Amino acid sequence: MSDAIGKLAVIGVGLIGGSLARALRQAGKVEHIVGCGRGRENLERALELGVIDEFTHDISEAVQGADIVFVAVPLGAMRAVFERMCGHLGENTIVTDGGSAKDSVITDFQAACPGHVDRFVAGHPIAGTERNGVEASFAELYHNRRVILTPGAETAKDALERVSAMWQACGAEVVIMDVERHDRVLAATSHLPHMLAFGLVDALARLDEHDDIFRFAAGGFRDFTRIASSNPVMWRDICIANHEALAGVMVKFAEEMRDLASTIEKGDAEHLLAVFERAKAARDAYVDGLASQNDTG
Amino acid sequence: MSDAIGKLAVIGVGLIGGSLARALRQAGKVEHIVGCGRGRENLERALELGVIDEFTHDISEAVQGADIVFVAVPLGAMRAVFERMCGHLGENTIVTDGGSAKDSVITDFQAACPGHVDRFVAGHPIAGTERNGVEASFAELYHNRRVILTPGAETAKDALERVSAMWQACGAEVVIMDVERHDRVLAATSHLPHMLAFGLVDALARLDEHDDIFRFAAGGFRDFTRIASSNPVMWRDICIANHEALAGVMVKFAEEMRDLASTIEKGDAEHLLAVFERAKAARDAYVDGLASQNDTG
Repeated sequence: MSDAIGKLAVIGVGLIGGSLARALRQAGKVEHIVGCGRGRENLERALELGVIDEFTHDISEAVQGADIVFVAVPLGAMRAVFERMCGHLGENTIVTDGGSAKDSVITDFQAACPGHVDRFVAGHPIAGTERNGVEASFAELYHNRRVILTPGAETAKDALERVSAMWQACGAEVVIMDVERHDRVLAATSHLPHMLAFGLVDALARLDEHDDIFRFAAGGFRDFTRIASSNPVMWRDICIANHEALAGVMVKFAEEMRDLASTIEKGDAEHLLAVFERAKAARDAYVDGLASQNDTG
Repeated sequence: MSDAIGKLAVIGVGLIGGSLARALRQAGKVEHIVGCGRGRENLERALELGVIDEFTHDISEAVQGADIVFVAVPLGAMRAVFERMCGHLGENTIVTDGGSAKDSVITDFQAACPGHVDRFVAGHPIAGTERNGVEASFAELYHNRRVILTPGAETAKDALERVSAMWQACGAEVVIMDVERHDRVLAATSHLPHMLAFGLVDALARLDEHDDIFRFAAGGFRDFTRIASSNPVMWRDICIANHEALAGVMVKFAEEMRDLASTIEKGDAEHLLAVFERAKAARDAYVDGLASQNDTG
């Protein structure tokens, strides 16, 4: 097929990278997959599971002759990865990524590999679970999920099309979005909730009576805090990478919590009911059916 | 059996009241159950489902000759319910409840029915889902869940024992706790998370681009905000009833979010990683297996 990938290099064979490899393989859209990473054990497991065909720890070797290079490492590692591949990329090799913040990744690529920016397509699959590693990967992760691509004026049309087709082959819906808008929307819908969950569990854990406190948490608490089991390094990097949009939305939300607390102190029953009804209606309408089919997170 | 209940009156036959009735019936610990509430349809459905044996809309009639009266109405309705039953309670009739805040309920009972306080046992089953009504009730809701009882100095020993036995017969673990401690612990582990979830969904829903914003929310967001689908009236009442402990913990948490935002702005990677690692460790250790067996919420 015209859109099949001859050689795919996956830098970082974890949940995100591994699932892309599995999905493309299952769709018959890739011939050869080379995995690259630092941990030998994870790569050996990926090979055993048939997720990749070979592996190397050397990025310059991995990208050699690749049609598409997919980078799925924590945001803080992006720049060093780009620096290591630059100079070893074929003229037509497309580089794309799966990072949860996009402005920082684009800046990193421009700094590391300025001569290749037309072949770089920044991307973000809105999918994932709180688990890590190739063991957690599965071919259906991207089914009916959205993948946001944030091309710039310099991005080559054919590179964007090729990356779009790659994600569509995984069952995803591709959405093109402005970089700043992506970082703002994700700060609100993903990064802020993670800060609330991490912050709440940490606040409770710091109390003297912490194990006792957790004993009296109900099932709702388990769901609410599930995302606090996410990878700390990944989230540290997301915070640093998207610090501007995230800090802004956090300060705003803290202000809203103070207002709600004051509404509660004043006993303004009508206002409270209005808030809760509006929230319930929005959640029931927009969120309840959200990706329920394939979500395991 | 000596601990079987001859007549149980359930005021408010929803998820909590209906599940208690079902569990006691299944355990063979109750002979006759009368349901009481305002909505005819729900009570008829409860009768059809065999959850109750008869129903009435008249509280004074429902409590007539009851061994135990279980009140499972929103906290804001407690006082009126207690007032309506007072004067119709048998000398030995025990009254208990399932409210999520306890100081307010005890105050309500003392005000409404001062002559009967020795037979009142304030209680709170730590169980529930975000669904409502008798249709959502099931006999296993309380299996391996904790029920907190907050007796005072005036509470009769035999009344406390009888209520403890009732919950144990439903498969629950009974924990005796000081009222103030209950209200403080629950403010942190349950009421605060609900405010964060309601507040977050409401904040996003108020944005101009709201349906678009929800489109880019991933599976983690669905779990995180599940509790924002809870009953708005119930939560309005919990806020009013536990306003002191709740407003305090909300203001404190808002302060912590501001601090975390400033850590993010400063780019203090080490501090961020420490917070996220501590939270992940606490959640994985204390919360992950929490009531996973029977939780449907």
